Amino acid sequence: MNSKRNVYLDLKSIEEAKKILFDQFENHVTKIETLDVVNAKERVLAKPAIAAISSPNFHAAAMDGIAVNASFTFGACEDAPITLIPDDNAFWVNTGHAMPEGTNAVIMIEHLNIIDKKNVEIEAPVFPWQHVRKMGEDIVATQLLFPRGHKINTYSLGALLAGGIFKVDVYKRPKVLIVPTGSELKQWHEISIDQLKPGDVLESNSTVLGGLCEDHGAQFDCHPMLKDNLETIKSAIKTAATQQYDMICIIGGSSAGSEDFAKPVISSLGELYVHGVTMMPGKPMMFGRVSDTPVFGIPGYPVSAIVAFEQFAGPLLLNMQRLPSKQPTEALVSPARKIASKLGQEEFLRVKIGSVDGKLISSQLPRGSGNITTLTEADGIIRIPANSEGISQKEQVHAQLLRPLSSIENTIVITGSHDNTLDLIADQIKAVRGDINISSSHVGSMGGIMAIKKGACHMAGAHLLDPEDGTYNISYIKKYLADQKVWLINLVMRDQGLIVPKGNPKQIQSIEDLKDKSLRFINRQPGSGTRILLDYKLKTLGISPDDILGYENDEYTHMSVAVSVLSGRVDAGLGIHAAARALDLDFVPIVTEEYDLVIPDRFYHTRKVQVLLESIQTKEFQDRVISLGGYDTQKTGKVIYQSDS
Amino acid sequence: MNSKRNVYLDLKSIEEAKKILFDQFENHVTKIETLDVVNAKERVLAKPAIAAISSPNFHAAAMDGIAVNASFTFGACEDAPITLIPDDNAFWVNTGHAMPEGTNAVIMIEHLNIIDKKNVEIEAPVFPWQHVRKMGEDIVATQLLFPRGHKINTYSLGALLAGGIFKVDVYKRPKVLIVPTGSELKQWHEISIDQLKPGDVLESNSTVLGGLCEDHGAQFDCHPMLKDNLETIKSAIKTAATQQYDMICIIGGSSAGSEDFAKPVISSLGELYVHGVTMMPGKPMMFGRVSDTPVFGIPGYPVSAIVAFEQFAGPLLLNMQRLPSKQPTEALVSPARKIASKLGQEEFLRVKIGSVDGKLISSQLPRGSGNITTLTEADGIIRIPANSEGISQKEQVHAQLLRPLSSIENTIVITGSHDNTLDLIADQIKAVRGDINISSSHVGSMGGIMAIKKGACHMAGAHLLDPEDGTYNISYIKKYLADQKVWLINLVMRDQGLIVPKGNPKQIQSIEDLKDKSLRFINRQPGSGTRILLDYKLKTLGISPDDILGYENDEYTHMSVAVSVLSGRVDAGLGIHAAARALDLDFVPIVTEEYDLVIPDRFYHTRKVQVLLESIQTKEFQDRVISLGGYDTQKTGKVIYQSDS
Repeated sequence: MNSKRNVYLDLKSIEEAKKILFDQFENHVTKIETLDVVNAKERVLAKPAIAAISSPNFHAAAMDGIAVNASFTFGACEDAPITLIPDDNAFWVNTGHAMPEGTNAVIMIEHLNIIDKKNVEIEAPVFPWQHVRKMGEDIVATQLLFPRGHKINTYSLGALLAGGIFKVDVYKRPKVLIVPTGSELKQWHEISIDQLKPGDVLESNSTVLGGLCEDHGAQFDCHPMLKDNLETIKSAIKTAATQQYDMICIIGGSSAGSEDFAKPVISSLGELYVHGVTMMPGKPMMFGRVSDTPVFGIPGYPVSAIVAFEQFAGPLLLNMQRLPSKQPTEALVSPARKIASKLGQEEFLRVKIGSVDGKLISSQLPRGSGNITTLTEADGIIRIPANSEGISQKEQVHAQLLRPLSSIENTIVITGSHDNTLDLIADQIKAVRGDINISSSHVGSMGGIMAIKKGACHMAGAHLLDPEDGTYNISYIKKYLADQKVWLINLVMRDQGLIVPKGNPKQIQSIEDLKDKSLRFINRQPGSGTRILLDYKLKTLGISPDDILGYENDEYTHMSVAVSVLSGRVDAGLGIHAAARALDLDFVPIVTEEYDLVIPDRFYHTRKVQVLLESIQTKEFQDRVISLGGYDTQKTGKVIYQSDS
Repeated sequence: MNSKRNVYLDLKSIEEAKKILFDQFENHVTKIETLDVVNAKERVLAKPAIAAISSPNFHAAAMDGIAVNASFTFGACEDAPITLIPDDNAFWVNTGHAMPEGTNAVIMIEHLNIIDKKNVEIEAPVFPWQHVRKMGEDIVATQLLFPRGHKINTYSLGALLAGGIFKVDVYKRPKVLIVPTGSELKQWHEISIDQLKPGDVLESNSTVLGGLCEDHGAQFDCHPMLKDNLETIKSAIKTAATQQYDMICIIGGSSAGSEDFAKPVISSLGELYVHGVTMMPGKPMMFGRVSDTPVFGIPGYPVSAIVAFEQFAGPLLLNMQRLPSKQPTEALVSPARKIASKLGQEEFLRVKIGSVDGKLISSQLPRGSGNITTLTEADGIIRIPANSEGISQKEQVHAQLLRPLSSIENTIVITGSHDNTLDLIADQIKAVRGDINISSSHVGSMGGIMAIKKGACHMAGAHLLDPEDGTYNISYIKKYLADQKVWLINLVMRDQGLIVPKGNPKQIQSIEDLKDKSLRFINRQPGSGTRILLDYKLKTLGISPDDILGYENDEYTHMSVAVSVLSGRVDAGLGIHAAARALDLDFVPIVTEEYDLVIPDRFYHTRKVQVLLESIQTKEFQDRVISLGGYDTQKTGKVIYQSDS
């Protein structure tokens, strides 16, 4: 077991750690290289770009017509037209032609009386320089086109070429070596997924960090993966530090465990400056110097790795090209619920953001730094300062946007019960309109109704059974949403039942079998329609919740319930057929229930909601639903109920 | 001369033309190709990405410690610790390890009393699933990771790999053929700039359009440049239309002149749908179909070319990959002055935008569609609808931003007199702080003072002579800016004089020589310090403006005056030595004058202004100023005056 643990050096705040980083490496700027302008897009000028030539470089006709010396036209009028003689005192020109010697104005062809090839009359005088693009109108030779530090974009290419600049001095792209470490890692190109054993982890960080290097203007090499072995890693970093890398990132082993070797490697080969930053995710990160190269220890959890890179390695790579740090676009958002946060660490909270009633509403995604989907599903990041215990529901806070506001505004926010067909909608709607997105959060049917009430979503998925009359949702709408007009649209009819392991080894046939406490059950969260269904069934059957082992343990989605069964954690859970089928589990049907969408009238008529309703009525969508198993689409898209209010 | 002119078809509005374009080509979607995920960054999913495996794919320890079955710990307390026996009822695990069979909780190493290798005590019970990352916590196999139409970014790569997706089906990048045409064009790699003759134009559009293709996810080939010859162009397009291009862009010849061949080429080989769109710039654009390929006729003026591409070709390329059109970020801006616009055409007005006193203020750049610098210097674009005659100074309008708001907010807006050292500041400040930008507009010294008064800039450059006492600027500040506290800081002392052709062929020695009306003079605009200086000198010398040929013609900058002299348009102009020297002209000194920066107190103390003042005091800056010629930096950075108000 482990005795040698690498305690953290003093933890630093992000600001302190950044200051140490830049104090050490601020002057690490890459060498300058000279490139043809046409190959210099996205690169950064190391020297000012000074125009070598004017544009235009001559007085040019700005219209098709005839060029004259304006003074020759003075006095022309309808009664006394003046005759121009082409190739003598006037010259045919097309747009862009150099003005012939001695001319200083162009008369448009529409304003000429063309008598014959040798005689052209005008009936009005023209001003000098009329319809002439004067030399230097766009660019004057010797003019500063772009200062040093300018990042060349597509438009810049045009100005550089027009100004006669064909080569530019730019900063070389920094080159990063990425070193993935970890005995548990398997690389995608070495293995097929059915060969993965428990404990094996697919290595994805090196690809993501490589992408981030590129996003910060750098190139990268990826070192072959290394096992958790001090000497192997040390020798690799020692070699790398003598090569032409501007930065080395060791991924994994940056924490304080017995198998965490990033710290001893950097300390023994060079100097370690910071280990541990008061931020979450990303706390167990470190950096130091080996030879003259900055070396980072990047945590292995994917979100931690990204935050650590973006806060430290990324800004340093930009500075190596003399670019300022990225300034994320921000927007003010209202949290859908109170957010608690731990004092003493700055938190990067991933949130979904919906635009509802002109207000941006954020809902918190899970915090786990091992979960990359908390970033890929996020629309923004709320940074909660180290000295804050969280954010109340009343405050508005700044969120850094991960996608453009216009895209967030084109998103339908669906909150409420979870159903697998919501994923299908998200995909199907893209087949109809590429610019509409779906964002769904799973908070249970009652949570969805409450979100509608608070104006926090555009629609809610619900399957709330009224035990009195066997209807779904209507009585709940009447009770909780009496103050507004809403539409209730059926999405699907679906089978609910017990999800059990393949082959149903415990021979479970009904809810009554759960009474036997030898069966481990997993419940759904309070307020979910499935839990309400279970409670109704238990009541009808006269079974007490206490009789069921695991009644108090809950999960938030059908798929999580199915995973619990698959992993052997439990023997059964209540959920939809589609979830059982997705993971190849067995299913004991209990009821067929109605799953509807609750849509406030003010959203019902919007284009994006209408597109959604259109797309669920397509045959393609309904065929896909049926193929999931356990669904019926007879009523899909039908109006079940419409409230008056 | 020209007789065959290509009249426009009915002009279409942008919306009408877009509808026609998409009605014709909406279903042109590129083929699907299968790529390794690691090579699919920035590509668009053609099919939904469904997770092949859960992540984690097993219950995993989330801490370093010992794994147990929680039920074994129930009852443990300080008085009655429970002993765990490693490798028997408990198992050492590190973060990420698979939970050993039969265990369901991890106890952190910090909470253990390690007696010896075989005995470990705990003094508190643990809950089931404490410190365990459950199977599927991040990703559940069969889950939709991304819908079709999702553009894969760096984070997406991580989720795809973690979900066991190693290959993805994505849309092929569309391929565009760019065909530059025009007998006047010279390509940068074929010529050195001193070989350019009047009438020759450096070809830059194909590089810019190629860059725009890439910016819209497409690849491009560039056809060898073609002369203005109907048959040559026709034959090239005919061939290209049989090749595997998704789009062809003919650059140039899209107008209605005699040498404009895009229209007859498309019409004769296929069908022309639109010629002429009511927009400015970009009106003379067209599109049609040859074989099954969309073919665009793109105007040759650089800004027209960009607007035409971005409005039509770009959105079509995105649609070929089923991506929505780009939605530019917008901001509300207040125009610094009234903007007139022509009825009947939608105008894309390029503007500089400054953030002054928390307000975004736009100032209009020149309209010439031949001037690429009107785009490279622009911070935004104001679209003025076809049915509008313009925008009053009181209205706020939406501007599409060409750079992030954070960059605009880090920009120092300098309005007023023109001096060549302003370019140097823009470059020099980048050597000090990469994140600060300079935006300077040249409206003359009085224009600068008025901009300060209106709160439209952060500082003004001025060299306003008070004839009474020979001071500069102070009396003007007292008169016009009495209501605010301002600082007057010297930028440079500089020589003003007559800029004359190399060798001074007309032997001009003084302003008095201008009296002879045989000399053509170019003036500066009213309100400029240089014009005030001239008027003062004329008055002193008893010369009437009427005695000077060209007194009524004016330019806005010293460099434009110098260009007028260089091009032979005039014999002399009043301006600074540096402008003459830049274009290798001769110079007849008249006075040495003070050029100062007027800075309101509320901006004087901001970080960005202080950085500017710091950078003009560096030796490097002052050496560069001196090397321009005609400057003295003895007083540079000194406070000349500070008003009380």
